[in-house]
Amino acid sequence: MVVVIDLWCNDGMKTGSPFKTVALIGKYNADGVAEPLLALAACISQRGHHVVFERDTAHNIGAAAAGYGALDTQQIGTQADVAVVVGGDGTMLGVGRQLASAKVPLIGVNHGRVGFITDIPLDDMRQVVPAMLEGQFEAEQRTLLAARIEREGNVLYETLAFNDVVVNRSGISGMVELRVDVDGRFMYMQRSDGLIIATPTGSTAYALSASGPILHPMLGGVVLVPIAPHALSNRPIVLPDSTDIVISIVAGREVSANFDMQSFTELRPGDRIIVKRSAHAVTFLHPVGYNYYATLRRKLHWNEHISAEDGLS
Amino acid sequence: MVVVIDLWCNDGMKTGSPFKTVALIGKYNADGVAEPLLALAACISQRGHHVVFERDTAHNIGAAAAGYGALDTQQIGTQADVAVVVGGDGTMLGVGRQLASAKVPLIGVNHGRVGFITDIPLDDMRQVVPAMLEGQFEAEQRTLLAARIEREGNVLYETLAFNDVVVNRSGISGMVELRVDVDGRFMYMQRSDGLIIATPTGSTAYALSASGPILHPMLGGVVLVPIAPHALSNRPIVLPDSTDIVISIVAGREVSANFDMQSFTELRPGDRIIVKRSAHAVTFLHPVGYNYYATLRRKLHWNEHISAEDGLS
Amino acid sequence: MVVVIDLWCNDGMKTGSPFKTVALIGKYNADGVAEPLLALAACISQRGHHVVFERDTAHNIGAAAAGYGALDTQQIGTQADVAVVVGGDGTMLGVGRQLASAKVPLIGVNHGRVGFITDIPLDDMRQVVPAMLEGQFEAEQRTLLAARIEREGNVLYETLAFNDVVVNRSGISGMVELRVDVDGRFMYMQRSDGLIIATPTGSTAYALSASGPILHPMLGGVVLVPIAPHALSNRPIVLPDSTDIVISIVAGREVSANFDMQSFTELRPGDRIIVKRSAHAVTFLHPVGYNYYATLRRKLHWNEHISAEDGLS
Amino acid sequence: MVVVIDLWCNDGMKTGSPFKTVALIGKYNADGVAEPLLALAACISQRGHHVVFERDTAHNIGAAAAGYGALDTQQIGTQADVAVVVGGDGTMLGVGRQLASAKVPLIGVNHGRVGFITDIPLDDMRQVVPAMLEGQFEAEQRTLLAARIEREGNVLYETLAFNDVVVNRSGISGMVELRVDVDGRFMYMQRSDGLIIATPTGSTAYALSASGPILHPMLGGVVLVPIAPHALSNRPIVLPDSTDIVISIVAGREVSANFDMQSFTELRPGDRIIVKRSAHAVTFLHPVGYNYYATLRRKLHWNEHISAEDGLS
Repeated sequence: MVVVIDLWCNDGMKTGSPFKTVALIGKYNADGVAEPLLALAACISQRGHHVVFERDTAHNIGAAAAGYGALDTQQIGTQADVAVVVGGDGTMLGVGRQLASAKVPLIGVNHGRVGFITDIPLDDMRQVVPAMLEGQFEAEQRTLLAARIEREGNVLYETLAFNDVVVNRSGISGMVELRVDVDGRFMYMQRSDGLIIATPTGSTAYALSASGPILHPMLGGVVLVPIAPHALSNRPIVLPDSTDIVISIVAGREVSANFDMQSFTELRPGDRIIVKRSAHAVTFLHPVGYNYYATLRRKLHWNEHISAEDGLS
Repeated sequence: MVVVIDLWCNDGMKTGSPFKTVALIGKYNADGVAEPLLALAACISQRGHHVVFERDTAHNIGAAAAGYGALDTQQIGTQADVAVVVGGDGTMLGVGRQLASAKVPLIGVNHGRVGFITDIPLDDMRQVVPAMLEGQFEAEQRTLLAARIEREGNVLYETLAFNDVVVNRSGISGMVELRVDVDGRFMYMQRSDGLIIATPTGSTAYALSASGPILHPMLGGVVLVPIAPHALSNRPIVLPDSTDIVISIVAGREVSANFDMQSFTELRPGDRIIVKRSAHAVTFLHPVGYNYYATLRRKLHWNEHISAEDGLS
Repeated sequence: MVVVIDLWCNDGMKTGSPFKTVALIGKYNADGVAEPLLALAACISQRGHHVVFERDTAHNIGAAAAGYGALDTQQIGTQADVAVVVGGDGTMLGVGRQLASAKVPLIGVNHGRVGFITDIPLDDMRQVVPAMLEGQFEAEQRTLLAARIEREGNVLYETLAFNDVVVNRSGISGMVELRVDVDGRFMYMQRSDGLIIATPTGSTAYALSASGPILHPMLGGVVLVPIAPHALSNRPIVLPDSTDIVISIVAGREVSANFDMQSFTELRPGDRIIVKRSAHAVTFLHPVGYNYYATLRRKLHWNEHISAEDGLS
Repeated sequence: MVVVIDLWCNDGMKTGSPFKTVALIGKYNADGVAEPLLALAACISQRGHHVVFERDTAHNIGAAAAGYGALDTQQIGTQADVAVVVGGDGTMLGVGRQLASAKVPLIGVNHGRVGFITDIPLDDMRQVVPAMLEGQFEAEQRTLLAARIEREGNVLYETLAFNDVVVNRSGISGMVELRVDVDGRFMYMQRSDGLIIATPTGSTAYALSASGPILHPMLGGVVLVPIAPHALSNRPIVLPDSTDIVISIVAGREVSANFDMQSFTELRPGDRIIVKRSAHAVTFLHPVGYNYYATLRRKLHWNEHISAEDGLS
């Protein structure tokens, strides 16, 4: 494999880069991304950054990655100053959860169509990322949810969620009945297919399919979106993210709780899922000039009008 | 148990009643309905109708039902001219499916709150039903769906559905990808939690929770309602009920097909669910003056306005 | 202007074409469509059809159209066997209303992006239309609504609507309160911005923006779609198109009724808008192989998935 | 008119009441509320508060109010420590806008059905309000929007809105095309019936009818809700209320801007409506134990389940 290094990589790292050690992570589909990742590694290494590969990424790339260090994710958390993640939004979410407590900021590169949070196309990576590592970026904080499942006072499970916590019925059971309490106050009983609690990040994922609103990342809110609720007046409600939310299973067979799609099954009536904002947040770095709304327009095809107008011109 | 017979029951059956043999069915919660059912039986028997109880109903009522014949549902199909069903809408749907091929018309009495299709309150039964059995009724046809599941050309399962056919993901799998063909023409690929095909009867049940429209029973249509579809422009579509609909599983783990909530699980990619209007329809009989829209208003609280107005008067 | 005639136009009209006299209509933006219309005229004329231009179309094209007859729309209704309409869906709707009683079938050509009902791109017209005129087409019936406004028993206005009848508040009044009766039965009182009654053709226009379902053209139904209703359980309802619908203005200032966007303003409380299916229908002709669902997919971007999946892969 | 004073009113005002001067406002339908207002006045006056009536309220009540002072709203703003408002939510919104800059907290009493923000029934007023005036209350801040209309750099109009700013088409024009910029960044072009910008208070009013989410009063957000948007993927979006929002009229005839339903008509292409959070907020006082969710449940009938279940039990 021949790695071409851009000439301007010779410029050297500018004084005062906030990021000495840069981790490169490209777990999935690493075949397609090996060459661009190696080119990036060579470039930023030459400019004076210390480059390490995430261990699985290094393994997938093979010998060519050997000249750089390899760290597992936990080590990246303690040793890296920034991580460049190549994958889809899902890869980014997973890395974000793992590095949340370590406060390592993330740069998201998409190897396919750009995503909501992986906003740099792979083809632009070599042009865009070195400048970002010099400090030319816009930072954005994203909240996570800390969730736990309790049964008779015992904690059965505890995890973080970047997108959403979803409590839902199984594919064949009739429905689930949930009780929701917010900050110690009874909110409602709900009969439905399930309930989504989504962060701003998650508001453009599953919650949007279930007719939830979009939440701006800076909002400081979470949204509760019912899935196919029996009460037709049951609408999405947006709460401050300082809120403690308790979902109690009232009735339903084979109810599951899903945290960014990691499932905990076999919930029983009486079980409680407790959701609050995590003490940790994740920092995303975007190129200068990043526009959240441009991402929405592109992903949601807001420039595409269907049209009474077409029908009435 | 003392059964009080209304005096007017002595009037005798008028000449020309279309219903000689009347079946009484009250499978569930028969305890609460035994007395009114027996009173009805005594009254209409005195008026000259031949009264039979459905076998389980007779068993639940006990000795007092012994004076009347007892038939299983299949025998009711061949011997009864009309069936009075006491229960909820679900009971009515079940009896409807069983008697569909026998063309026995149904009168629906609700032992709780009146339903969409069990529109006679239990307390009114003794007043209302004898007159209906004399011919004072309004008849309404309801369509059923005939559905079957095919795998590699073999029919795995075949059934009728009164409300809906629902193909959906399990509670923990990410989503399902379905291909829909209509009358041999490709309609769309859909990624979602699932897809509902509902009759007019089913349009006020689960499909309504998933944002489907209401279909008038006389419409001659079925509606396809996506559940949490990924394509935000994927809207409910109403097709003529003469249409043949084929849903093919493209991707998804633990996909199930549900027919009025009777589940067939473990569908695999390549399996096809084929849905068309059943050759059989069910006839509901309503008291004279029945108003479908009154039922909608009552069940959907259309007289309840939330209100910008409250906020702006 | 040089008009190039395709060689195959020499073939001559096949025996048995159902369409002797062909009207060409391209009222709007006729500049851009003059040349292709003339080429079409030359071709099908050479093949033996009698070609006439709609009078305004002829006027816009100028001298080059002089060799052909020119008729106004009413004359087209009595003399033409088919009309080719070049424009947008709105042009097609207008011509359809005018020719509805004359039963002249229509072929829709779009000079911009293809529409829901003008499904032949202008560039394909010369290839596609001559064959259609030989009988190679698929015919589709579309219903129209006949609507009239009554005040104190007098008819104030009467018209046809192809897409929809919309009764709505003005831009500055609070809301409108409407009473709806269907086939002489009270349906509901509704407080809202307004109410849309849409045909299947109109179901993909304004009604769709107001969250109505899509109705297949063959359905035989109309849909009532409330606009921003106060009762949150007020959902679209699909009725058989044999239904008589009466909308009475109960309250509201500056209420207007709009018929395919032709407005009748200054409605007062007590006024009634009466809507039923027109005795006339319009026949659209499509090229062989026409697929209604392909039009939906293209116009509604059903192949575009936004994606939890993108976020979770 | 005989005014009965409750015996416990003799108890006297407890030391340390934060509210010396109490204004009573009951502009509309003052006939029905005169007696209870006078009883309240007598009671709290006896307990040591200084009672004043709003001038129009005093006028409506007549001679019996003469023993108390009468102030116009502006004077109430400078002289009163709290105002008790009897009316509907609309009355409360109007008073709130007028007193916003004066920081007078409001107690809302409803003379009809309780509203979203007038949560004390008139019948409970005499029991509940005196205790609140002693300090037994829960306070809640509600944001307002400051809006202005600009044309060619000139400010045409400036106002506050408690519920919402709505830019919409007239009743007879086809649609409006709007451009929205947020904090100087282009968000989208939108073709629709209009756009609602709602506060949390307004999120349960018109915005809810247009399918917007509910925003908790503590959220610190505003929601943009499109009305019948042409782009089917155009969903409500919730922004931090620190955001500056600029709506520019791109196209549309007879466009109007409405601020809590006060209308500014005749907007032209190029006009801009600029909306931001007002520097002022309004404080609502609620009885101890107030539960925002209880209000939602009651107003939105969340205890009312329609029911697949009804249909399937």
